[in-house]
Amino acid sequence: MMIAEKMKSLVENNSAIRTMFEEGKRMAAIYGAENVYDFSLGNPNVPAPEAVNQAIVQVLAEEESTFVHGYMSNAGYEDVRQAVAKSLNERFGTHFGMQNIIMTVGAASGMNIILKTILNPGDQVLTFAPYFLEYGAYVRNYDGELIAVEPDTETFQPNLVRFEALLGPKVRAVIMNSPNNPTGVIYSEETLKGIGDILERKSREYGHAILLISDEPYRELAYDGAVVPYVTKYYANTVVCYSYSKSLSLPGERIGYLVIPDELEDSAQVTAAAVIANRVIGCVNAPSLMQRVIKRCLNAQVNLEAYNRNRHLLYESLTKYGFTCVKPEGAFYLFVKTPMEDKAFCEVCKKHRILVVPGGSFACPGYVRISYCVSYEQIERSLPAFRKVAEECGLMEMCGGAAETCGGAAETYGQTAEGGQA
Amino acid sequence: MMIAEKMKSLVENNSAIRTMFEEGKRMAAIYGAENVYDFSLGNPNVPAPEAVNQAIVQVLAEEESTFVHGYMSNAGYEDVRQAVAKSLNERFGTHFGMQNIIMTVGAASGMNIILKTILNPGDQVLTFAPYFLEYGAYVRNYDGELIAVEPDTETFQPNLVRFEALLGPKVRAVIMNSPNNPTGVIYSEETLKGIGDILERKSREYGHAILLISDEPYRELAYDGAVVPYVTKYYANTVVCYSYSKSLSLPGERIGYLVIPDELEDSAQVTAAAVIANRVIGCVNAPSLMQRVIKRCLNAQVNLEAYNRNRHLLYESLTKYGFTCVKPEGAFYLFVKTPMEDKAFCEVCKKHRILVVPGGSFACPGYVRISYCVSYEQIERSLPAFRKVAEECGLMEMCGGAAETCGGAAETYGQTAEGGQA
Repeated sequence: MMIAEKMKSLVENNSAIRTMFEEGKRMAAIYGAENVYDFSLGNPNVPAPEAVNQAIVQVLAEEESTFVHGYMSNAGYEDVRQAVAKSLNERFGTHFGMQNIIMTVGAASGMNIILKTILNPGDQVLTFAPYFLEYGAYVRNYDGELIAVEPDTETFQPNLVRFEALLGPKVRAVIMNSPNNPTGVIYSEETLKGIGDILERKSREYGHAILLISDEPYRELAYDGAVVPYVTKYYANTVVCYSYSKSLSLPGERIGYLVIPDELEDSAQVTAAAVIANRVIGCVNAPSLMQRVIKRCLNAQVNLEAYNRNRHLLYESLTKYGFTCVKPEGAFYLFVKTPMEDKAFCEVCKKHRILVVPGGSFACPGYVRISYCVSYEQIERSLPAFRKVAEECGLMEMCGGAAETCGGAAETYGQTAEGGQA
Repeated sequence: MMIAEKMKSLVENNSAIRTMFEEGKRMAAIYGAENVYDFSLGNPNVPAPEAVNQAIVQVLAEEESTFVHGYMSNAGYEDVRQAVAKSLNERFGTHFGMQNIIMTVGAASGMNIILKTILNPGDQVLTFAPYFLEYGAYVRNYDGELIAVEPDTETFQPNLVRFEALLGPKVRAVIMNSPNNPTGVIYSEETLKGIGDILERKSREYGHAILLISDEPYRELAYDGAVVPYVTKYYANTVVCYSYSKSLSLPGERIGYLVIPDELEDSAQVTAAAVIANRVIGCVNAPSLMQRVIKRCLNAQVNLEAYNRNRHLLYESLTKYGFTCVKPEGAFYLFVKTPMEDKAFCEVCKKHRILVVPGGSFACPGYVRISYCVSYEQIERSLPAFRKVAEECGLMEMCGGAAETCGGAAETYGQTAEGGQA
């Protein structure tokens, strides 16, 4: 039973992140879970807010079984879509209605739905490195070609000069992700205006609309009061793929939504097609009970301070050991520059039972992604191992030579931590 | 924003069943829900068994939030897969292990996963008319071509002579569905042996394996003790797409599984690819809480007798009014021969506020599908309307001329109903 040609490369290049996840389970079985420092997966360790389980129990008690567990319109329950739209309007000053919201099986499904809706074979899709490599698989599902814009490794804001240069007439869509996986960087308002301007200019030049797809599972994970601008305000032909995986710690439940604003060209037709795409790719609809729960949890949020503590401890410690990385403003990742080739560095880490993901898995070699959605205790326990890695890579000697800088970093930590709590 | 070429035909030929569903909501708003007899959708009216909601509450009380709502391996929780395998083995004498089960976002998703796993562009897939038209969309998602084998309208068992004739060298897979939507017919052991024999012979002749995909959402809905043979026993290269949508009345929850037996050629490679397909089509994994619930509900079942009562009342009444159809042994549909062109007949029904789906929507014109997963009371209330339809079509005069036959049918009903309860 030969597998499909398109599947062969997928099997050969199976997700490094997922491979690491399986490797973590294997090592935990050998050394004990507490002796393996798995920073590989974006699987939230902060539990879902109490409100979620309470809402589940309330829904079961108060709503009819055939309604809660039954089919609804493929776009989702109307009252849920209305409530999501209202919540967005209140928070971001948008003007969405029920007709702009399609409930989806997570953001990954939302992205597949919109890509299926608009891509023709051979169409190009741009995205900004570093990026979540699955985007490539999503685009290839519809015979499109994903092209990465090279990163600006100073700031990890998108490189707009290269973006404009790569934005040729075959580009049908652009995927962006902020707060960003893997860097934790939030794209600034200036960046979004820049992206919008370029897209408007190029759309006019080529005579066809270019769709901006904003993948936003980390929207709610922003620290120190950082603002994550709402992308539809900066460019009309924008759709948003949202997920509650991170904001409510429900990654396994596969619940999210797709926003298609009225301002989007041919909005009604695109929406009608997207609802059908939702059905025929096999999702049919977003899980029903979780839709009902979302309606009751629109103001709930995970304990962000737990991630913030992790962020500070890990960032301050690693920089103290001589590692360098942009301080993340959002999400729950550090993207750390490696003192050697990134895969080799991952092997050094693994010797010390630390699992991290090479930057190559985000089209940005020379870095590793460290997920800090783990227990504070795991980070504490892992620090001696990170220190040994730094020593082995010759970073600690440099640090030893600049001991005061290290001390200074530790002090900064206290101040920033206070700021984070404010 | 032009939608994709492939989406255009999907939008134009949007599911007649779903269109009917929206029409039903519209008519209910005008005439009142109790005055519209909507038999269009396979949306179970029998609530999920008590065990489901109890299991949900238990899972939330007994299992960790980050475990219940978190990521697991893309194939699903190992203990859940193990439990599903064990349950199948006990019930059907199979020999599955955890490695043969992938938890999926319903059966529709399972079908997309396996089709993505094996289809190359231009591959043909056969299925047996009448069939669920979405199969065509699933196959076209991967640039395959679905070809329907003409029905044997005497029995609605697959027409094996035509099957063999159509099974050319480009055929890569065959989709079957028993108990069948829309006929309610269960494919007999003889049929399955016949299908298996032909597939084995043709696989040898063409020098490549042909995959049999068994779509089984209705497996548990069999009446009067009818046996639904387990398809993997009759042909090695068989996969099963299962859903709890009907057996536990959870269609909105999108929970099911895909079985890939060890006996399947290159089973391990196909399984590895299918797990990846599950991820990249955007599902990532089956909804996590519902997976945990399924483990606790493997022996639960909806109240089948409710459907059985509906089946008897509707079958006996419609045949009394002069309609003809094969008596369904499973699922919750009647497939009734129409006394005129099927779409025209649906319009006559609609005049009497009855919504049914034309057979053309199952590649079998000249029939309508009547879903009896509705309340007994709806069927009772609808009978005068069905009677008027029969009169308008000239069927009742025939019945009037054979009054004793009608009486006889009513008596048979009592007997069969008893049999059904046994």
